[in-house]
Amino acid sequence: MTELIEKIRRFNQQRDWEQYHSPKNLAMALAGEVGELLECFQWLTEQQSRNLAPEKRAAVEEEMGDVTIYLLNLADHLGIDLIDAAHKKLEQNARKYPIDKAKGQAKKYTELD
Amino acid sequence: MTELIEKIRRFNQQRDWEQYHSPKNLAMALAGEVGELLECFQWLTEQQSRNLAPEKRAAVEEEMGDVTIYLLNLADHLGIDLIDAAHKKLEQNARKYPIDKAKGQAKKYTELD
Amino acid sequence: MTELIEKIRRFNQQRDWEQYHSPKNLAMALAGEVGELLECFQWLTEQQSRNLAPEKRAAVEEEMGDVTIYLLNLADHLGIDLIDAAHKKLEQNARKYPIDKAKGQAKKYTELD
Amino acid sequence: MTELIEKIRRFNQQRDWEQYHSPKNLAMALAGEVGELLECFQWLTEQQSRNLAPEKRAAVEEEMGDVTIYLLNLADHLGIDLIDAAHKKLEQNARKYPIDKAKGQAKKYTELD
Repeated sequence: MTELIEKIRRFNQQRDWEQYHSPKNLAMALAGEVGELLECFQWLTEQQSRNLAPEKRAAVEEEMGDVTIYLLNLADHLGIDLIDAAHKKLEQNARKYPIDKAKGQAKKYTELD
Repeated sequence: MTELIEKIRRFNQQRDWEQYHSPKNLAMALAGEVGELLECFQWLTEQQSRNLAPEKRAAVEEEMGDVTIYLLNLADHLGIDLIDAAHKKLEQNARKYPIDKAKGQAKKYTELD
Repeated sequence: MTELIEKIRRFNQQRDWEQYHSPKNLAMALAGEVGELLECFQWLTEQQSRNLAPEKRAAVEEEMGDVTIYLLNLADHLGIDLIDAAHKKLEQNARKYPIDKAKGQAKKYTELD
Repeated sequence: MTELIEKIRRFNQQRDWEQYHSPKNLAMALAGEVGELLECFQWLTEQQSRNLAPEKRAAVEEEMGDVTIYLLNLADHLGIDLIDAAHKKLEQNARKYPIDKAKGQAKKYTELD
């Protein structure tokens, strides 16, 4: 991941694109890429989404590559460690949805998020 | 990252939530979290987004934690390696936006993405 | 609709919020609200989404109210007539997906949009 | 608007696309189009977004046409009146952000939305 982050930095510096990459703009670009990812799935049934045809899977992988690039780029600009942020959030979620309660009521809580 | 992926798996299995986690649904949940991230930035100037106040930064970090969790969860269900996907996409982008052309015209190309 | 647009304008002027409402920011806010709408649907099956429970339906209606407000606000700032824009796009789509071809192959084309 | 809604219905019926248009799927498609709208604005400054170049403005108008089509289509499937939903939400917002408080503190509140 460190190697990837450095590759992203170099890619943007070489193109003089850093000037466009405020966190606000990077968050928008991330959302744009996630929109393209949604488009891959929007007309599929849930079942179809579990068994993607090869070309569809390739398209999904590309979009997820883009999403990862912008997410890492944004995190890099803000000095945020994504793995660390995810661990912290997961522990917070574990307190918010204790196993015994969450298990009984399935997704009831999270629907209200 | 491997540790985090296993933690996410265990978290969801313990709560019987796997049944809701089709790739289609996970893509939607990812988009929902990115929407919350956007809301952190929407009324800030670009300059303000570069210098987040502490509470704002904490909120951004939480949302990015959520985004990372859903992105990893989705990748795990599809058997996609995010780091690998990002490397591949970056190399594709390097061919699409050669340094000398991209540098001269700045963001001209990417606007059309 | 004209009455609604004027009400939105007045609402924002009275609160001095116009200063925040650049088209860029309004597009972000629109996306944030659409993210909240997605969250209403993300764990539902398609079938459940066709028969919303009353509280869920009320939540969806609220989010769609927010989406409409930001969409109209954005259009108002850009001097774009949404009804007109939709008519034009629909005619463009009709040429892009001629009935006989689209009917046979169902969603094949639009998946590539 | 009634005319437009009927045109959208006819467009989809003629292509046998109704089968794909569960509210869940339509919400995803709406989000996908909003993602494309974001991409129009992501590298612009706020000031540039207030003065769009003609080709950019045409692209924005097209995306807003798509957004309007999916929003109306979704509302039609759910039996929701968008104008009515927006009026109700605006009145709710007026109670949530009373003029005198909101005015003094500008966007403070809405940042927490």
